[in-house]
Formats: sequence, structure tokens, C-alpha cells
Amino acid sequence: MAPRKQQEIFDATLRLVAEKGYDGLTVEGVAERAGVNKTTIYRWWPSKAALLGAALVESDVLAFDAPDTGSLRGDLVALVEGVRRLLTEPPGSDIAVAALGAAVRHPELDARRFFADRFARERRIFERAVGRGELKESADPMLIVDLLAGAVWMRAVFRGLRPGDDFATEAVSALLDGI
Amino acid sequence: MAPRKQQEIFDATLRLVAEKGYDGLTVEGVAERAGVNKTTIYRWWPSKAALLGAALVESDVLAFDAPDTGSLRGDLVALVEGVRRLLTEPPGSDIAVAALGAAVRHPELDARRFFADRFARERRIFERAVGRGELKESADPMLIVDLLAGAVWMRAVFRGLRPGDDFATEAVSALLDGI
Repeated sequence: MAPRKQQEIFDATLRLVAEKGYDGLTVEGVAERAGVNKTTIYRWWPSKAALLGAALVESDVLAFDAPDTGSLRGDLVALVEGVRRLLTEPPGSDIAVAALGAAVRHPELDARRFFADRFARERRIFERAVGRGELKESADPMLIVDLLAGAVWMRAVFRGLRPGDDFATEAVSALLDGI
Repeated sequence: MAPRKQQEIFDATLRLVAEKGYDGLTVEGVAERAGVNKTTIYRWWPSKAALLGAALVESDVLAFDAPDTGSLRGDLVALVEGVRRLLTEPPGSDIAVAALGAAVRHPELDARRFFADRFARERRIFERAVGRGELKESADPMLIVDLLAGAVWMRAVFRGLRPGDDFATEAVSALLDGI
């Protein structure tokens, strides 16, 4: 499939899940919005779960590059800031929160791929930090990411509070400087 | 309403949301399972969102007492351990994950009350720690809770990985001892 057409299908998928939730997402609805035949979609993705899973990982809308600012602190602040924007700034936040919320109830929608894909890129932040002598080799990168990204989810989604402009700096400082 | 009857209604509500999801939860279904008339439920809670919101905060199943172990480290480890059990040990975890996942898509189901109620109790952990000289007065208790509880959610729910037995100790150590 042409990459542009694929992105249009992912785009339609993510917008539909944001508007109607996972239960309201249908391959027919995606096909109609993207202007393709639904058999075309089924040829590539066997189910709506597979389609949404692929869209989460491969859509340009949720594309993710790990920051590379030159310092561990700078990289982590940029990472948290990116998660904060992802979860609070529409229309991306409607998409991300709806799709990740749906993944909780629908294990067949494999959100683990989304997080595993991001983590594979985030690893480089920690490799560089170890290389620069800013981080012990024994540090646990996944724990650090989970503490920081989880805090944004708790604050913005579960508490329904808007993380302030200094949230990223303060969260990273709690980890790097201690509480 | 008699407290025991109220707990039966909350219990039926939480079990139904775990089994059928929020969309499958109905006041009729709860009434049937709890053996009460649905008008009785509507007299106390005007909607299924209000009923589930009340169940989240008031059910004995999700009852929460902030730990008081005598040290900040001990309290935080116990706190994280409690969240880990809540999110990973059935049947409680089915209930908690389904209800909190539903809250993401249904703001009318006010999960903020659940977190605000818990946080009001968790505050005492930090007040005692400041009193014992273990924590600066300027420390931000909500940030600490969000980092720790969010990490469990990320690991157990989004990544679908089982946090190990030492997860609580390591997460708290990352915050108290630095990374």
C-alpha cells in the first residue's frame, strides 16, 4: 500500500476512536472516512484491533523521536514534556487518551507494542547518559520512564488536573535531585 | 439505606463493570444482582455514573487506609505495594482496572473523587514524614504519589508486565536515594 494511503487510513482510525470510542470504531467507518474499500483494509489488518494497534505504532500523528538535548536532565524533561503534550493538547490528546483507555479493556488491542516501540527509542537516552557518566550502569531505564510517564497520566487523566508548565522540570528534579 | 444493603449494591456494581465493562453496566443489572428494586437505586444515585462513582469511593472492596509504618520509606513501599496488589491481583484488579479504564472515556463517571479521596488519606504519610524530619516541608506530596502510583499503572496495565516483588522497594528507592 502507498505510504500516504496507509497514513490516511491510520488517521481515520485514530480520529474515529477519539470521536466514538473503541466500541464505536468499525472497519467500515474507517474505510468510508479514508475513501477506500473495506476489503482493502482487511487485506492488511485482520481486525479493528489489529488496525488500531498498527495505527498507534505507525501513525505520523503519534510519531515519537526520543529527545537528544546533550544531558540526561534535558532529555528527561523533554520526554516528560512530550508526554504532557500528548495527553493534554487536543486533538492529539483525544486520540491518545481514547486509544490508550480502550487498550485497558481490550487486551486484543495490543497497546504493549506502542509502549515497547517507544521504549526501544527511549533506551538511547539512558545509554548516552551512562556514556557521559551521568547515570549508573545499574540504573533501570524502564523504571525511570514508568515513574515519569505514569505521573503525567495520573495527574492529567485520572485526576483531571492540568499539569503545569513546570511539571516536567519538577518531576525530573524529584528523581535526579531526590525528594 | 442500611449500610450492608448499600455495600451489596456497590459490590454488584463493581462486579458488573468488571465483567461487562462500563457500556454493559446498567442500573437494572445491578438491581437484579443485588436483589433490590431499581427505583431504590435511583432514589439514592441518579445515574449509573453516579452509582459507580460512589462505589469507587465508598465500597469496602476498594477501601483504602494509608499505611503508617513509622518511616517515610516504609510507608511509601507499603503504598506502592498496595497499588500493585490493587492493579494485579484478581478479582480486585479486574474491578479497579475496568472502572478506572472506563473513567478515562466517561468523564461523567467522576474518578477524580476516587483519587482525591485516596490522596486526602495519603497526605498524612507526608505530614508525619515532615514531622519526623524525613522530608522537606517544600516537598510536593501529590507529585510523589503520582510518580509512584503512575509507575505501577504504566508497568502493570499499559505494558502488561507483572511488576516483580521488588518493584515497590526499587521504585521508592529511585525517589529517595536517587537514580
